[in-house]
Amino acid sequence: MTAAKRQFHADVFITLKRLVNDPEGIEIRNGLHNLGYDDVSEVRAGKYMQLQVEAANEDEALASVNEMCERLLCNTVIEEFRVSILEPQAT
Amino acid sequence: MTAAKRQFHADVFITLKRLVNDPEGIEIRNGLHNLGYDDVSEVRAGKYMQLQVEAANEDEALASVNEMCERLLCNTVIEEFRVSILEPQAT
Repeated sequence: MTAAKRQFHADVFITLKRLVNDPEGIEIRNGLHNLGYDDVSEVRAGKYMQLQVEAANEDEALASVNEMCERLLCNTVIEEFRVSILEPQAT
Repeated sequence: MTAAKRQFHADVFITLKRLVNDPEGIEIRNGLHNLGYDDVSEVRAGKYMQLQVEAANEDEALASVNEMCERLLCNTVIEEFRVSILEPQAT
């Protein structure tokens, strides 16, 4: 017997590792300073992905999305990722 | 008297509006399907920024970062944003 699969929403946050230089973030910070926002001391730029995944349960969805990050979404040499799974909506 | 400013961490999530076509997300989904992840029905690609901002309090930090999004970080014609302010770390 196979459990029915449900739809999960996964948020994936990909950021550069702390020690990796972030020229995009630096440019954004400079742009903000040029607009007068001098209270911004640092900007780090990253990626955000929203996935709709079918899985039997939350643990399976998390494991699956973690694997996708390792294999495709994230360059683990310079980036790190965080995955957050949201409860499936009632249907 | 001016209140001492504190350091806040702001997470900014920028996504394409629901009705805007997302070719990057579609390509990522195709890549995942090619790797065998057929349970992924949709991918939306967005941006994620982490800001360090000085402000008197959380409300001021939120208002300031919202304004930065409107003016520079986000293209509000096709994108929408969400800001989340984290409590300053104890120093």
